[in-house]
Amino acid sequence: MDWTPPAVAPRADAALTARLRQRIDHLTKPLGALGQLEALMLQAGLLQGRVDPRLDAPQVLVFAADHGLAARGVSAYPSDVTAQMVENFLAGGAAISVLARLHGLPLTVVDAGVRGARAVRPGLIVRPVAPGGTADASLGPAMSRAQCVQALELGREVVGSVPGNALVLGEMGIGNTSAAALLTAHFTGAPLAACVGRGTGLDDAGLARKLEVLAQVAQRHAGVATPLEALAAFGGFEIAALAGAMLQAAHERRLIVVDGFIVTAALLVAHALRPAVLEACVFAHCSDEAGHARALAHLGARPLLALDLRLGEGSGAALAWPLVVGAVALLDGMASFDSAGISGRDASTATA
Amino acid sequence: MDWTPPAVAPRADAALTARLRQRIDHLTKPLGALGQLEALMLQAGLLQGRVDPRLDAPQVLVFAADHGLAARGVSAYPSDVTAQMVENFLAGGAAISVLARLHGLPLTVVDAGVRGARAVRPGLIVRPVAPGGTADASLGPAMSRAQCVQALELGREVVGSVPGNALVLGEMGIGNTSAAALLTAHFTGAPLAACVGRGTGLDDAGLARKLEVLAQVAQRHAGVATPLEALAAFGGFEIAALAGAMLQAAHERRLIVVDGFIVTAALLVAHALRPAVLEACVFAHCSDEAGHARALAHLGARPLLALDLRLGEGSGAALAWPLVVGAVALLDGMASFDSAGISGRDASTATA
Repeated sequence: MDWTPPAVAPRADAALTARLRQRIDHLTKPLGALGQLEALMLQAGLLQGRVDPRLDAPQVLVFAADHGLAARGVSAYPSDVTAQMVENFLAGGAAISVLARLHGLPLTVVDAGVRGARAVRPGLIVRPVAPGGTADASLGPAMSRAQCVQALELGREVVGSVPGNALVLGEMGIGNTSAAALLTAHFTGAPLAACVGRGTGLDDAGLARKLEVLAQVAQRHAGVATPLEALAAFGGFEIAALAGAMLQAAHERRLIVVDGFIVTAALLVAHALRPAVLEACVFAHCSDEAGHARALAHLGARPLLALDLRLGEGSGAALAWPLVVGAVALLDGMASFDSAGISGRDASTATA
Repeated sequence: MDWTPPAVAPRADAALTARLRQRIDHLTKPLGALGQLEALMLQAGLLQGRVDPRLDAPQVLVFAADHGLAARGVSAYPSDVTAQMVENFLAGGAAISVLARLHGLPLTVVDAGVRGARAVRPGLIVRPVAPGGTADASLGPAMSRAQCVQALELGREVVGSVPGNALVLGEMGIGNTSAAALLTAHFTGAPLAACVGRGTGLDDAGLARKLEVLAQVAQRHAGVATPLEALAAFGGFEIAALAGAMLQAAHERRLIVVDGFIVTAALLVAHALRPAVLEACVFAHCSDEAGHARALAHLGARPLLALDLRLGEGSGAALAWPLVVGAVALLDGMASFDSAGISGRDASTATA
């Protein structure tokens, strides 16, 4: 497929790593006592190439699109709900709306192919790749090559259009745990059954039907070879746009807070194209949805939260956001042992 | 010991539980999709006796005191650091200072027995139970019965003196992982070795020495019978004040965000006196310090975070605070399916 992802160069900088490590270790706390937050401090500093990383104008971007496969009864909700939830996002009543408001994060919703027409409004970007969403992946590829590239480029352009150096990414799309399950199985090599979950709340019979349908889809597209072929085969537009957004964000060295199962599935695509995209990624949480843990393990990711969330929208990423803010604030605001006049560790008993 | 803890009555309210559950289930999300945050919503509502819980004037309280046992070399830092860190808290350079400021939480430090004299200032309550801290628990009880009651009452009074309906509790005291380890072993029945950790950073030799000293202390006080006898035997003043603070807070039905190993050890005491104190408690995190997981398991607690923190001060509780705020904000701010005009679950596939 004819698309060149933006360059994402790994930034191995031993000197900066040492300076950051020294700065972190001189904060008024026992060595290592801030645990995973110290890893966050280090990551933010390396990403920005400075010992004093800052979070400037962080944004929430929610990509939404419909899935042709939803017609096969793979979700507990009808496809109409995608459009209804887009309205809910904009009206301020969805979980991500509440959390974005709470944390002072501007929220932009991107219609990448949601059924029905909608007017452009503040906070909404209307750029459907195809107005009705993807095609039914059980009958053929969810999208054409051209559509796949268009969706990837949409994600890139949206990132380029918003300010700031940090992104909280989310999604909406009835049926998209199916696409995410297919992508996760494809990229991780895990059995499909281990990647398929109840989504928005399927019962046992619904779950069995979903697995049966997805097995047919996987079988139909067993020949896909490249990351973009897999993405085009399984969909969806919001996932492709997210993959493009993450690649662009990593190219610009913006911090990316990765939400749950679907956003991580998009990252599997981005990672297959540009492995260094991971340097920009903070993993918000481990979803309760089957398959997410497989995707996280494949990426070697350790998420910040494990609260049995399975809502999507970017809600998990928004819930984890204050931990990112906290880490950067601690690095910036804590005194050092010298500046605070704190006695050092007792050399006879302290670890190095 | 002659002390009657404040009444903490369990609030089993089936009707309110049902109303809260119904409200939570009608928010625009799949059933249960907010995972542990839904348990938080329910807890906050039951604690306050209303379907629309609010967080009013939340406060950070940090209790500090010194430990006579520190003279036995159980910490990597000298006792001077307790007083120095109290100054750091007040100057704004400690982790808890930064996080309290970040989240808009007023911080009050309580000197419950820190070495050296200090002037009363805004944000500092000076009420030392004994000016130099507790006695050496390897030689006798860390505190007298009268001192123990005085420290418990101090905690109660401090809570009574601050406004609001939610508390983020923390502590400072060089040597207090030793007291916490002794209390944890006592109340949980776990082997002492499973409760003793590196604290602020002991090396292997230091850890071995700490365990040896604590085994002597435990042996010396093997006869303690009541919760308050154990508290008096092992210390410290900040732990006793925290136990009193939690009992008073639960009595007033304030929400308590429990920090790490030391605050949880204080809760073990409070819980032994008034089991219903747990209804008020939100567990912030599982500390990297050995023994905390034992204490949490004993209390049947599931913490919100697991970030390998081991700093104390209330830093873990302050990091978890935005999750509590988020849960309450979501319950308050999310639309319902009806109000947002969202299609319901497909009855043929949805779980009940």
